[in-house]
Amino acid sequence: MGELLRGKPVADAVMLEVKNSVKELKSKNIKPKLMIVRVGEKNDDISYEKSAVIRMKSCNIECEVTVMPEDINQEDFIVKLKAVNDDESVHGILLLRPLPEQIDENSVKYIIDPQKDIDCFNPINVAKIAEGDRDGFAPCTPTAVMEILKYNNIQLKGKRAAVIGRSMVVGKPAALLLLSEDATVTICHSKTENLEKVAVEADILIAAIGRAGMITGGFVKEGAVVIDVGINVDADGNICGDADTESCREKAGFITPVPGGVGSVTTAVLAKNVLKACRLANNLN
Amino acid sequence: MGELLRGKPVADAVMLEVKNSVKELKSKNIKPKLMIVRVGEKNDDISYEKSAVIRMKSCNIECEVTVMPEDINQEDFIVKLKAVNDDESVHGILLLRPLPEQIDENSVKYIIDPQKDIDCFNPINVAKIAEGDRDGFAPCTPTAVMEILKYNNIQLKGKRAAVIGRSMVVGKPAALLLLSEDATVTICHSKTENLEKVAVEADILIAAIGRAGMITGGFVKEGAVVIDVGINVDADGNICGDADTESCREKAGFITPVPGGVGSVTTAVLAKNVLKACRLANNLN
Repeated sequence: MGELLRGKPVADAVMLEVKNSVKELKSKNIKPKLMIVRVGEKNDDISYEKSAVIRMKSCNIECEVTVMPEDINQEDFIVKLKAVNDDESVHGILLLRPLPEQIDENSVKYIIDPQKDIDCFNPINVAKIAEGDRDGFAPCTPTAVMEILKYNNIQLKGKRAAVIGRSMVVGKPAALLLLSEDATVTICHSKTENLEKVAVEADILIAAIGRAGMITGGFVKEGAVVIDVGINVDADGNICGDADTESCREKAGFITPVPGGVGSVTTAVLAKNVLKACRLANNLN
Repeated sequence: MGELLRGKPVADAVMLEVKNSVKELKSKNIKPKLMIVRVGEKNDDISYEKSAVIRMKSCNIECEVTVMPEDINQEDFIVKLKAVNDDESVHGILLLRPLPEQIDENSVKYIIDPQKDIDCFNPINVAKIAEGDRDGFAPCTPTAVMEILKYNNIQLKGKRAAVIGRSMVVGKPAALLLLSEDATVTICHSKTENLEKVAVEADILIAAIGRAGMITGGFVKEGAVVIDVGINVDADGNICGDADTESCREKAGFITPVPGGVGSVTTAVLAKNVLKACRLANNLN
């Protein structure tokens, strides 16, 4: 029976590091600050925002929220985003996405200052992840995946990893981060033939397709590590992952639960990225 | 015995398309132009430049070469590169790399105008490839690989592709381009364990490691397509690829020769990219 890799101890370890860094920065009179930018009143956005605000408070990172009306036009949005960019007291900007339709993400993504872009919206950060440049910011969720693997001393070098899903917020950056750690990475997706056969070769299996319980035991190599990035709601209204945890556990050596897995590490990574941005802005390693 | 996929008919087909497009543009009084930027007198650069110049001439694309001294400092280099950027008669810029040591590629890469950056030096184009945005420019060599696959009607959707090598000029962009065509892509590299076992799963095998004849028949699935991107010089001074063509042919359904394979398509792709840049600059689809 595979061991559960819970997110909490990972988040705690990340937060300990963050708190020490905040202390050090404050002793230098530097006050790390996150600005969350939200357009409209979507429930998902508000709920992530709430947990981010609590997390920042818990580690003394200043946190402010800029809320714009749901129907803001692109021009006004850009003016406001630029003002956040230019605010020297702000080190990290979290722009909650997707943005409403009238705002063209493909053009506004270039505006956010890459050095403050702690959730990898600007293509410059996308490219840095592709290049393996550690000064770049990867999105928080795939970074949380990497933190879980690192915390649990899971060897990546030379190992086979399969990422199921190829979104720009999880699948592709996860694949590129695993590659930077010298894993041999396979990217699978909805068009993959014989997905089960491909997945079962992997020592590390990342499920990020957004389909409740799709990954069952047959997809899992004996002893593999399964990282379940999915957050879905099942027919009974319960939160569940992309993996069918029970059947996967019969094969897996380790598996992250949902809830209580990757999701609980995300805002800790967000805090860590604010610190990284703040340190970079202040030329501290 | 696997069939040889020669580059010449692919290059010819690409050039036919290019020539028609040049004709159409010239009838609109638009003159597509490539500027090659070379620093110093490296043999590799000069030889690639020569073949590019010949190719452009053959399809009536104007082509000019800016040569800078080997010891140019970064500041002067930037001034000259910006002048090329600003030259409205220039649609595509090919900067021959690697640049000499005193020029920091990591900072100058942001300077080249992404819309003229036809060989994917600017991170904005790297990100576009990662995002699957077809307005971006991928480097010419992996694009040549895709042209060969397309010309020969090799199905990619759902198929397994393995890319051996993870450089930013070939391996990674090739993997991302294959992914955009819905292949299931595995990226292998020097740290991959059991490389032979991984490679032999692939329906499409891209060899881009830069080691003469390293890929032998044992790496090749029965009937697979082998695309050999390597250009190496063997002990006898002959040009050879990363694949041992003879032993691979015993297993492969199709294989590109070296020389006469991918390399012979590269400058045709360069011409095609100049046209693409010229059309984008003139708002023609």
